[in-house]
Amino acid sequence: MKNTIGRHISCTIFGESHGSAIGVTLDGLPAGISIDEQFIAAQGEKRKAKGRISTQRHEADIPHIISGVFEGYTTGTPLTILIQNSDQHSADYEKTKNRLRPSHADYTADVKYLGYQDYRGGGHFSGRITAPLVAAGAIAIQILADMGIYIGSHIMKCHGVSDDAFASDIDLLNKQVAKLQTAAFPVINENAQREMTAEIEQAAANGDSVGGIIESAVINLPAGIGEPFFDSLESIIAHYLYSIPAVKGVAFGLGFGFSDYTGSEVNDALAYKDGVVITKTNNNGGINGGISNGMPIVIQTCVKPTPSIYKEQDTINKQTKQTEKLIISGRHDPAIIHRACVVVDSVLALAVLDCYMERCASLALQNHRKED
Amino acid sequence: MKNTIGRHISCTIFGESHGSAIGVTLDGLPAGISIDEQFIAAQGEKRKAKGRISTQRHEADIPHIISGVFEGYTTGTPLTILIQNSDQHSADYEKTKNRLRPSHADYTADVKYLGYQDYRGGGHFSGRITAPLVAAGAIAIQILADMGIYIGSHIMKCHGVSDDAFASDIDLLNKQVAKLQTAAFPVINENAQREMTAEIEQAAANGDSVGGIIESAVINLPAGIGEPFFDSLESIIAHYLYSIPAVKGVAFGLGFGFSDYTGSEVNDALAYKDGVVITKTNNNGGINGGISNGMPIVIQTCVKPTPSIYKEQDTINKQTKQTEKLIISGRHDPAIIHRACVVVDSVLALAVLDCYMERCASLALQNHRKED
Amino acid sequence: MKNTIGRHISCTIFGESHGSAIGVTLDGLPAGISIDEQFIAAQGEKRKAKGRISTQRHEADIPHIISGVFEGYTTGTPLTILIQNSDQHSADYEKTKNRLRPSHADYTADVKYLGYQDYRGGGHFSGRITAPLVAAGAIAIQILADMGIYIGSHIMKCHGVSDDAFASDIDLLNKQVAKLQTAAFPVINENAQREMTAEIEQAAANGDSVGGIIESAVINLPAGIGEPFFDSLESIIAHYLYSIPAVKGVAFGLGFGFSDYTGSEVNDALAYKDGVVITKTNNNGGINGGISNGMPIVIQTCVKPTPSIYKEQDTINKQTKQTEKLIISGRHDPAIIHRACVVVDSVLALAVLDCYMERCASLALQNHRKED
Amino acid sequence: MKNTIGRHISCTIFGESHGSAIGVTLDGLPAGISIDEQFIAAQGEKRKAKGRISTQRHEADIPHIISGVFEGYTTGTPLTILIQNSDQHSADYEKTKNRLRPSHADYTADVKYLGYQDYRGGGHFSGRITAPLVAAGAIAIQILADMGIYIGSHIMKCHGVSDDAFASDIDLLNKQVAKLQTAAFPVINENAQREMTAEIEQAAANGDSVGGIIESAVINLPAGIGEPFFDSLESIIAHYLYSIPAVKGVAFGLGFGFSDYTGSEVNDALAYKDGVVITKTNNNGGINGGISNGMPIVIQTCVKPTPSIYKEQDTINKQTKQTEKLIISGRHDPAIIHRACVVVDSVLALAVLDCYMERCASLALQNHRKED
Repeated sequence: MKNTIGRHISCTIFGESHGSAIGVTLDGLPAGISIDEQFIAAQGEKRKAKGRISTQRHEADIPHIISGVFEGYTTGTPLTILIQNSDQHSADYEKTKNRLRPSHADYTADVKYLGYQDYRGGGHFSGRITAPLVAAGAIAIQILADMGIYIGSHIMKCHGVSDDAFASDIDLLNKQVAKLQTAAFPVINENAQREMTAEIEQAAANGDSVGGIIESAVINLPAGIGEPFFDSLESIIAHYLYSIPAVKGVAFGLGFGFSDYTGSEVNDALAYKDGVVITKTNNNGGINGGISNGMPIVIQTCVKPTPSIYKEQDTINKQTKQTEKLIISGRHDPAIIHRACVVVDSVLALAVLDCYMERCASLALQNHRKED
Repeated sequence: MKNTIGRHISCTIFGESHGSAIGVTLDGLPAGISIDEQFIAAQGEKRKAKGRISTQRHEADIPHIISGVFEGYTTGTPLTILIQNSDQHSADYEKTKNRLRPSHADYTADVKYLGYQDYRGGGHFSGRITAPLVAAGAIAIQILADMGIYIGSHIMKCHGVSDDAFASDIDLLNKQVAKLQTAAFPVINENAQREMTAEIEQAAANGDSVGGIIESAVINLPAGIGEPFFDSLESIIAHYLYSIPAVKGVAFGLGFGFSDYTGSEVNDALAYKDGVVITKTNNNGGINGGISNGMPIVIQTCVKPTPSIYKEQDTINKQTKQTEKLIISGRHDPAIIHRACVVVDSVLALAVLDCYMERCASLALQNHRKED
Repeated sequence: MKNTIGRHISCTIFGESHGSAIGVTLDGLPAGISIDEQFIAAQGEKRKAKGRISTQRHEADIPHIISGVFEGYTTGTPLTILIQNSDQHSADYEKTKNRLRPSHADYTADVKYLGYQDYRGGGHFSGRITAPLVAAGAIAIQILADMGIYIGSHIMKCHGVSDDAFASDIDLLNKQVAKLQTAAFPVINENAQREMTAEIEQAAANGDSVGGIIESAVINLPAGIGEPFFDSLESIIAHYLYSIPAVKGVAFGLGFGFSDYTGSEVNDALAYKDGVVITKTNNNGGINGGISNGMPIVIQTCVKPTPSIYKEQDTINKQTKQTEKLIISGRHDPAIIHRACVVVDSVLALAVLDCYMERCASLALQNHRKED
Repeated sequence: MKNTIGRHISCTIFGESHGSAIGVTLDGLPAGISIDEQFIAAQGEKRKAKGRISTQRHEADIPHIISGVFEGYTTGTPLTILIQNSDQHSADYEKTKNRLRPSHADYTADVKYLGYQDYRGGGHFSGRITAPLVAAGAIAIQILADMGIYIGSHIMKCHGVSDDAFASDIDLLNKQVAKLQTAAFPVINENAQREMTAEIEQAAANGDSVGGIIESAVINLPAGIGEPFFDSLESIIAHYLYSIPAVKGVAFGLGFGFSDYTGSEVNDALAYKDGVVITKTNNNGGINGGISNGMPIVIQTCVKPTPSIYKEQDTINKQTKQTEKLIISGRHDPAIIHRACVVVDSVLALAVLDCYMERCASLALQNHRKED
């Protein structure tokens, strides 16, 4: 479905970086959900560029709900949010449109869309399109929070600098996740923040950029969510995460680390705790056979270094068909990893909520039948 | 869609490890494709357990096409393949059904299906269900090969032992991929085979198991395939790969390695070679902005150690609600990483073919319009 | 999705009239449903040709469940049913394969599948493929019946002969629907049966065929099921019904009759009856704004006369590219309208159950939220 | 997918009658289509209320394209069109919100959305939401016209008054379809216009309303489009048409008339004409076995009388739980059948274009393979 995702709550995004507006439509939301526009705006703030370690482009980025909410509650019909584009310097792009930026979508978009794509600022490929995703995700985050399900992300690694790991103790993890919601720079260890910021500033000073790994946890997701095979919880979550520009790796639990261990070292023993089934370790990141087991869902997402850098690069000119040297002017982020955390949280919320509803449908039918 | 995947060529799998048969239905195949049943069978052979490093369970696993092929060619209507289950020791499972195997789907299936799941041999969660996937993938592989698109996988890492990397030179990579098709143990470097086999035999001797990382390449996929955002080529491929049991990580190009570099180090410079656009390096694994750029698609897939081990483990008994010690008897693989390569190739072929057809639809409409 | 339908319970059909087997896979069924194989077989019997008014082709048509049922209950994983093809006279078709039968799919299949289709007995276009649909529908009918929702159909019209209308009184309608389940020839008025049978026999005597209109009622479907616009209950039901070969008209409530009345004559006044909202009339067939209103869903389905007739017809020979006279030999039905009733019931059950689950998912999430 | 439809070109609608804006997103459009905004506006004009036979509500209804078009051409990324709501008398609705209008969606929406729906002017159920559908359809109509495929509709019947039938001669039909595009009141016979207008004016004078049947033709659709069973051309077209509010019947070719004939009377004999396969009659409305046969696709769509009438009606008050008399004040149409023609054309264009692309995808893959 290209720009639409979700089996129960479908999310459709639209817009270009330098068009008149960008937006998102959520369909399938239950009626009667109280919409907290301030929370939506606050999540959007997290995504925005701030300080020395970010681009200097500033957008008001105020999300306007134009349908699907009536007197403060969802109506159950499609909820569309628009964000006007304001800070446009379209002329910046005209002169460089034929020089395709390496590791951007400039070349692939040109092939796919036969040259008709809106090239200004990356057009529909711009990271700006994640702003509507964050607005949509804010609603999903609220719905999940109403049910006691929380999502949090930290920068696990940034250009070689590592943060502390998530706590294996659930109560402690809960506190970490809560604290990450309001962190200006989402890490667990304050030293990591200092070192990572230094790396990003160094990259900025060099006209270069850095990437990193975001680790996320979904807490209190009940067991039994997800499907074997094609709609495994991993499949669905990875599908959503890979829709975020610059994501090049997604893994669960120990992830790629599994390749260094034996089964006896990493199998998660089952046990009871206060009458509830738990696993003593959580190497599988809360998922077995594609289905949640009640433990925290733990996900790593790798974000590559921002491809827009000030350093001179080799590229091609699609008009002259010659190789050229390129220096990308304008404003760019030396790192987006800190801004990406809220985007990751947002798409995780959309993914998890959709899987949750799949489970609801199945159980509900079962319950209806029992009553009769 | 749970057990169905694919927008153009939909693939529906069904069956349980110890039921009467397992199978797959492919719908949307073009009519007139010559079906090579020997190739389908040969691909199935690769997936089978062989030698000391595999389980001793032996299945004939002969795929029977029961619809969708007429006089040797696809009809264009649903193609269903059945594989009879024969080597069944169902009684083995009755006595252990309440002791849930750690890191298997036993517990999550029990929650999801309320205790009604077929528990014998993992039921629908069994790795056996990948046999129909391999049969379906064989057809996709053939169709892609007709268009000059080839897929190959090697064991990049197995319990700490690494294979050589894929060649960056395209001609050499082509040869590597061709050679991997017929390899008994798919690695590039023969020493790696010896060392990895030793690791697996050691794990077997210990009653333990090991996992690894599979690296795959899709060669000659044209540029322009995939979508921005939700149907990015990465999203689609990851969705398919995460449907394979035991997969816990999927990454593209440098993958998680991106977190250690700067943009200037890993951006892939664009250039012309013989009039064709290439990138000088391929750190992005052939995908920019979710769309193929014409370079080889390079994917890493992490397979965790087989959770069935002979060592004693802690688990729960769902009947007694007590913790118990468990020793899993029966036959199991100390490693499935070598058998998994053909499964990875198969689902990659299904994923890539589906994305390819999406592109065809779009281009075809464009061409039809031009003619008028 | 071509041969797959259903958002919650997906139904995939496969097979050709003269292949080795035909079948269906149902995915998304709740676990723990007791499967009544006798009921599935009994529904299949209704679809079979019987007596003078049907074809003389006889098929055992025994449905075999090969997955998704364990110890008598659904497992929640894909349920596949196979029906072997046995009574095959494939040679009959070889000699006539180039003479395309008028008003059949012979020509359109030839264009679509480029000549590769299995032409024997209509191949995948055969009415035989409705046998798996009936098996699948039997399971849906059972699940709905567990919740008190019943479906029944009668031949409202056959070659100009009309049956009595469904009773507007709900209790009486309930009895009519119950009685239709076991009727050899499903009509309300016995005289209609006699007259319709006479019409069919007359058509048979003339080497000709007749069609008719089937009226169906879905009783006790709760209000609130269906969606505005694209997934209106009418859209979904019509989509399913038009998948039955030979159906050329689908209408709801007064249907095409609406064009003769004014709004004041046909608006359905709202009222309370025993505290429950009803409409005093049911001209809208139980659906307003695409959503069920709690009244019986009433649907008319028009089935065209069977195109296989013994009379000489003009057609083309695709080999010689000449016009030819054609007499279709072999066995064919002078009418399928009576056999089609159970097919209509079956696809209605699949359609309604799917819409019902959509509603469950939405309500369940609402309820989960309230609890918290 | 509720408010999204289409496998290749997905169409998502959103908005409420009295919200800030309504709109539509089309995704999957090929890049490089020249967008004629004047044509989109002109199609919208046809849908608008005009003269004595329509409501007095006047909306500017200017469609604004906010994404997916760059320098006059489609970019290939989502194309979103917004229509601002301006002429809002929301206060009119507050006082009547508890008195549910018979044969409207007021009651069913209230059940489905638990009372949270926007009740003003029908909210998301308003006929106004067809305005974005017409804008989206205009683009599909343009693309089809580029390929020589045309769609036209006339009012076949209105409150008992019949128009002439479509010509069976293709050339004549072409002229009729062309002429209908610009007709103020789309009928073939001018007398029919006079008589139908008189019926509508009479209904208006009585404070009543009338409905009718729209007959549509799709000309020059190539043979081979559509699928057997679940995605039959009839299934897809009916699904789209039943998404239009007030539609209660959809039929193809002879439609329900088939029940009065024998097979020998209505089978469409095949023949060659100038080397092209045709059928001598077109009783099947251009579709056999769910697949187009190259003849005009002929569809009848029944639109019920507008439920908003000035006459007193019985209804319920959802607050008092009592029966009440209701007189609906405000502005309403005595008939929408003439305004509905362009809506029918629009959704037909979306439906047919989607099926056309499905065919393109399949053929394109075939062609790619042949080249190799």
